[in-house]
Amino acid sequence: MQKVTVIGSGNVAQHLIKVFLQSTEIELVQVFARQPKSVSHLVPQNKIVSNITQLEKVDVCIVSVTDNAIAEVAAQLPFQQQLVVHTSGSTELTALGLNNRKGVFYPLQTFSKNKTVDFSNIPLCLEAENENDYKLLEQLAHAISKNVYRISSEQRKSLHVAAVFVSNFVNHMYYIGSEICREHQIPFEILQPLIQEVAHKITELPPAEAQTGPALRNDTKTLNKHIAFLENSNYQDIYKLLTQSIQNVKKL
Amino acid sequence: MQKVTVIGSGNVAQHLIKVFLQSTEIELVQVFARQPKSVSHLVPQNKIVSNITQLEKVDVCIVSVTDNAIAEVAAQLPFQQQLVVHTSGSTELTALGLNNRKGVFYPLQTFSKNKTVDFSNIPLCLEAENENDYKLLEQLAHAISKNVYRISSEQRKSLHVAAVFVSNFVNHMYYIGSEICREHQIPFEILQPLIQEVAHKITELPPAEAQTGPALRNDTKTLNKHIAFLENSNYQDIYKLLTQSIQNVKKL
Repeated sequence: MQKVTVIGSGNVAQHLIKVFLQSTEIELVQVFARQPKSVSHLVPQNKIVSNITQLEKVDVCIVSVTDNAIAEVAAQLPFQQQLVVHTSGSTELTALGLNNRKGVFYPLQTFSKNKTVDFSNIPLCLEAENENDYKLLEQLAHAISKNVYRISSEQRKSLHVAAVFVSNFVNHMYYIGSEICREHQIPFEILQPLIQEVAHKITELPPAEAQTGPALRNDTKTLNKHIAFLENSNYQDIYKLLTQSIQNVKKL
Repeated sequence: MQKVTVIGSGNVAQHLIKVFLQSTEIELVQVFARQPKSVSHLVPQNKIVSNITQLEKVDVCIVSVTDNAIAEVAAQLPFQQQLVVHTSGSTELTALGLNNRKGVFYPLQTFSKNKTVDFSNIPLCLEAENENDYKLLEQLAHAISKNVYRISSEQRKSLHVAAVFVSNFVNHMYYIGSEICREHQIPFEILQPLIQEVAHKITELPPAEAQTGPALRNDTKTLNKHIAFLENSNYQDIYKLLTQSIQNVKKL
């Protein structure tokens, strides 16, 4: 049994706590939370610690706090030469300081507090400073997920940027679509099957091949009609820039 | 049994032909295709017509050809005062000419030729010039789909623009994500669970509430790191414009 400790009580921490408690291959030794109440619905009282000096040595100590707090928390850990990992997509390994062996255990997914997630499908992106530590992380990761990847710091940076495009920016496109519908008294649900199909399509085709629409066809009549239709100048700018960008791909 | 004819042999036409042939409430009387071979794998030979003057009167004649060809085809129909509809999201009703009663039968979905689609989930957007014709279209639509909507010409225009944002532009975001992955030797599949979750999330939450990420948090440190990381100036412009647009929503 691998012994792990989770530091933090946010969305990612709570999902990790749940999945560790369910695993027969992992012993969740302690959970550190400044406010014990925030995790008392999940973890037996005797495992919750609110004083960081009470943390025991384990095989893997997982620091799952907001990016800005990682360095501060890592500096306060009451042990040395242990394997300590963070769960952040955009934080350097060096944030974990010099006292312990460092690594990353980054679940690439959006987590909402009240939404159950099938953890076994979540990609876990791992990094460690040496092969032994990597093996430890890999064993831990395989206990909770089928999708485990070795991702360097440099790759993790690019993955985080790519994730902004395919999740945050995609959601903003949904938002603009929903606003256009709202302004014209159309239920947004009409667009749901299309949205789901577009997301599904790229599980079978590369996005370059899945592209359709007036920009790709260079259907200037429709493009001009759409730009004129969009009265909001911000939406017009987005429409023009993305149309141009789709056409740049075509030309390659 | 409603009698229908389909004019055309493209993606939408072929999907309509298949689903009409499966329905017990609809009789597919004829299919018009310039090249009979293009539909001979779907339709019995005696129903295929390649001379437009051979088209018979039916309850609903569906013109499912490329947008630019609708007016030309409609002008050649060998009957008058019949109900003729097109299947286009971005074509005026008037393109169907003055000889027949006009309407729209617009399936809001992306269709790929070799991909089976569960038609019963596809939203059908209907329009007619009078209530009797609307009832005819509604009956036809309900025979093949659960999702039937009355959508005016004005609403259809806005729906088509909204669809560009939530499908074409979303797919382009997937493309940029896949390019960033490719440039850094990361398999794009790592992003798939995130992509599917983001699409799924808005079936439960309005997009404005589902928004996450550094733009929404105004995490300028991460935003600047990402922009510096993106060496491609086109991707930088998109990143900046969409970040700004997400932050405009927040301020409302």
